[in-house]
Amino acid sequence: MVLTKLSSEPKKFQILLGTFVHSKSRTELDYLHNAAVAVDTRGQIAAIARDCRSMSDAKDAVLRQTGWKASEADVVECEEGQFFFPGFIDTHVHASQYPNIGIFGKSSLLDWLERYTFPLECSLSDLAKAQRVYTACVRRTLAHGTTTATYYTTIDVPATNLLADLCLNLGQRAFVGRVCMDRKGFCPDYYEDESPEVAVHATRETISHIDKVDPGYELVSPILTPRFAPACTPESMNALSKIQKEKHLPVQTHISENKGEIELVKHMYPAAKTYADVYDKHELLTPKTVLAHAVYLTDDEATLISQRESKVSHCPCSNSSLTSGEARVRWMWDKGIEVGLGTDMSGGYSPSILEAARQATLMSRHLAMQIDDDDASRERCKLTVEEVLYLATRGGALCLGLGDKVGGFEVGKQLDAQLIALGAVGDDGLRAGEDGVDWADAGNVDVFGWETWDERIAKWLYNGDDRNTKKVWVRGRLVHSRR
Amino acid sequence: MVLTKLSSEPKKFQILLGTFVHSKSRTELDYLHNAAVAVDTRGQIAAIARDCRSMSDAKDAVLRQTGWKASEADVVECEEGQFFFPGFIDTHVHASQYPNIGIFGKSSLLDWLERYTFPLECSLSDLAKAQRVYTACVRRTLAHGTTTATYYTTIDVPATNLLADLCLNLGQRAFVGRVCMDRKGFCPDYYEDESPEVAVHATRETISHIDKVDPGYELVSPILTPRFAPACTPESMNALSKIQKEKHLPVQTHISENKGEIELVKHMYPAAKTYADVYDKHELLTPKTVLAHAVYLTDDEATLISQRESKVSHCPCSNSSLTSGEARVRWMWDKGIEVGLGTDMSGGYSPSILEAARQATLMSRHLAMQIDDDDASRERCKLTVEEVLYLATRGGALCLGLGDKVGGFEVGKQLDAQLIALGAVGDDGLRAGEDGVDWADAGNVDVFGWETWDERIAKWLYNGDDRNTKKVWVRGRLVHSRR
Repeated sequence: MVLTKLSSEPKKFQILLGTFVHSKSRTELDYLHNAAVAVDTRGQIAAIARDCRSMSDAKDAVLRQTGWKASEADVVECEEGQFFFPGFIDTHVHASQYPNIGIFGKSSLLDWLERYTFPLECSLSDLAKAQRVYTACVRRTLAHGTTTATYYTTIDVPATNLLADLCLNLGQRAFVGRVCMDRKGFCPDYYEDESPEVAVHATRETISHIDKVDPGYELVSPILTPRFAPACTPESMNALSKIQKEKHLPVQTHISENKGEIELVKHMYPAAKTYADVYDKHELLTPKTVLAHAVYLTDDEATLISQRESKVSHCPCSNSSLTSGEARVRWMWDKGIEVGLGTDMSGGYSPSILEAARQATLMSRHLAMQIDDDDASRERCKLTVEEVLYLATRGGALCLGLGDKVGGFEVGKQLDAQLIALGAVGDDGLRAGEDGVDWADAGNVDVFGWETWDERIAKWLYNGDDRNTKKVWVRGRLVHSRR
Repeated sequence: MVLTKLSSEPKKFQILLGTFVHSKSRTELDYLHNAAVAVDTRGQIAAIARDCRSMSDAKDAVLRQTGWKASEADVVECEEGQFFFPGFIDTHVHASQYPNIGIFGKSSLLDWLERYTFPLECSLSDLAKAQRVYTACVRRTLAHGTTTATYYTTIDVPATNLLADLCLNLGQRAFVGRVCMDRKGFCPDYYEDESPEVAVHATRETISHIDKVDPGYELVSPILTPRFAPACTPESMNALSKIQKEKHLPVQTHISENKGEIELVKHMYPAAKTYADVYDKHELLTPKTVLAHAVYLTDDEATLISQRESKVSHCPCSNSSLTSGEARVRWMWDKGIEVGLGTDMSGGYSPSILEAARQATLMSRHLAMQIDDDDASRERCKLTVEEVLYLATRGGALCLGLGDKVGGFEVGKQLDAQLIALGAVGDDGLRAGEDGVDWADAGNVDVFGWETWDERIAKWLYNGDDRNTKKVWVRGRLVHSRR
């Protein structure tokens, strides 16, 4: 098995042919069969034809719509049973913690930070190490179909800039945030911003770097990243808010992940009504703010977040691993809050947003278990296959202000997509092709042939992995492929 | 990537060289480095040498101990970073439901049975379909390192016998249980044993078949399988108990998986004190009985099960998927009950016991979340990496009366084992070998090189999959291998 080298920018028009699946709404998937998606050389979708009599008809239809000649376009055609799906969006991931995934013992948030996380993050000021870790992280997440990632790095400027460069080179759409953590007493002596001024200056340096390497933020954007209230001073939070207003940048931080953390915030900010109020007082609750976790939000906090149009990144793998708690996605939706999914590596153990989606269904069932059998809210609490795939794509896009750019297949959107292939079981019970020399391991999804499309998608959600993601495109550029 | 064809019985002695990892106790793993395990032609471990100066020294040591000549033995040597681990033991799996994994919608136990499960099971009376489904299931679980599986089939005798034959041919150690379900009103008209007599006769036929094809139950054993109390009559349960006493066979059934099911049992068996009491009254709680789920056991039930020395199969994937509840492993251990892991396909979505182990850690954390932060039982509730790997191996062996045969590496035990390889990240951040033509996809575990052995095992638990299981042996016979 060989991963192909990254291609350069697409030089030709592209036409993708086959079945396309994406979210029609939170509750429903839309299946475009015998469809064609025409993509221009800037990676933008120029035309779509669907439900044609054949793929060939669909191709002709988009050629007519665009006025392109067949010879001007490269064609990518689904094989039987394959389908295109929007790229996944990871709304919360610490690239700098990638080497620690799976390593957390019995810890919970605050001791986990001290024991596992701060030492590793600190060590990435070694640029050779940062290059190694960030390369592995970006390539790994691309291989899992993550076309957009919202990264925390470390406090280190050169290493943060390196991650921005890597995302550009490897072709992943990314938000890259240098972590701001300047609060004495909470941050360890060996790993902290010396002062609010130093923190803000360093942050500005990483913004300037991205301004230089991707001036229009076409692929990579800076994101303001106060680590979380316990790690920041009011001064640095105010200063980041000022930059936000000045440059209209997105913001990311953590909120209400763990009960101990909430107590700590109460103790540190006695004047604040709630945890959310701390951020609000520092004008960090903006429509461009992504709040990770939000496990223990009160009603008032949810109302405030909803009013401010801030967003939430739901990180079920992490919340289970670190025994943080069970975030209530349905409840947040009811409150009018937009929600996306985060791997939260390495609080979360997996690089895969598909795994995060799977665990989101299970976490919603753990919440449901606490509700009586005859209470209708029990069933309502459970998230469906369709709903978690919405979280993984359109939900994430909306969290990051990319709702008009990515998350589904529509004219005018950019092609951030993956080609999914599921395994097939032959009549003899062997996996189709398994005995051939050139057989590519199709992973753990076994399709027998009688399944509906909805059932195939459910099988993919529950047993799919990176082996099912055969190709990945960002802005029309092929950024990952495997046999 | 090619899966090798199944080898025949080992003709020569075998010597395995490298690092061996297995459970020393519930809480501790034992690492045998520079070790050799010598296996005789019956698949039994004849000698072990550990902590030698080199693998070559270890090999010499076992040759001395056994008196074998080097030329008489085939040698399997670990590469750098690889290790041998005991084969996994799946103590609860419905082979007949394999095609449905991942398909369960928002259902819970009783509607799931009716909507998804009974129709599929019934359809396996078509032997061609049964051959296809069972072949896929056995090969898939072997590929995940499951060397012993405790199967439910369907009510169908020929299809059940087919599964027994397949396990023998493909080399998986298995308990094969024809499902007994003769209770009118609960079982659907189209899929039920006509009467207790028919049920018992059919069960005897499957036992006779296995008596013929594997007279000493060396690899495949029958297991008495009353589906669960709501699906069985007192007559059939009594008759199965009689067979149990007559032939000393193991028994498997379900208990206390779901609140609705418990209510149903209460209603059907008004004279019984508890659900467990129903089985006890029919003398089905034996030291050879494996009870799946046991989510809502009362104190009295746990005490009774412990007194009877019956065992529990913990199925976390299933219990989460079907919103059944959260079984308390620590509590059952405290009660003196032996526990193993089950995939419970297709209530569980995954064929992998490694996934079951992973989900067992997460489920224990969901239980812990319900306990106050300052209560010591909160921390105690969480299962460790070592504990869930114990459940997956020695725990399962003890549940199935195989404690002296498999589950670890000791002289006199049989070689049921897997060779595990983890991925490595090169200095450039690429996965080692990734650019080579012959590169075998090593999966999602990325070892950077600085990890301790405990950390490597944790990484395997949380991100490992069948790609890491390079070879699988049952009774010394190589039954699965991949590049």
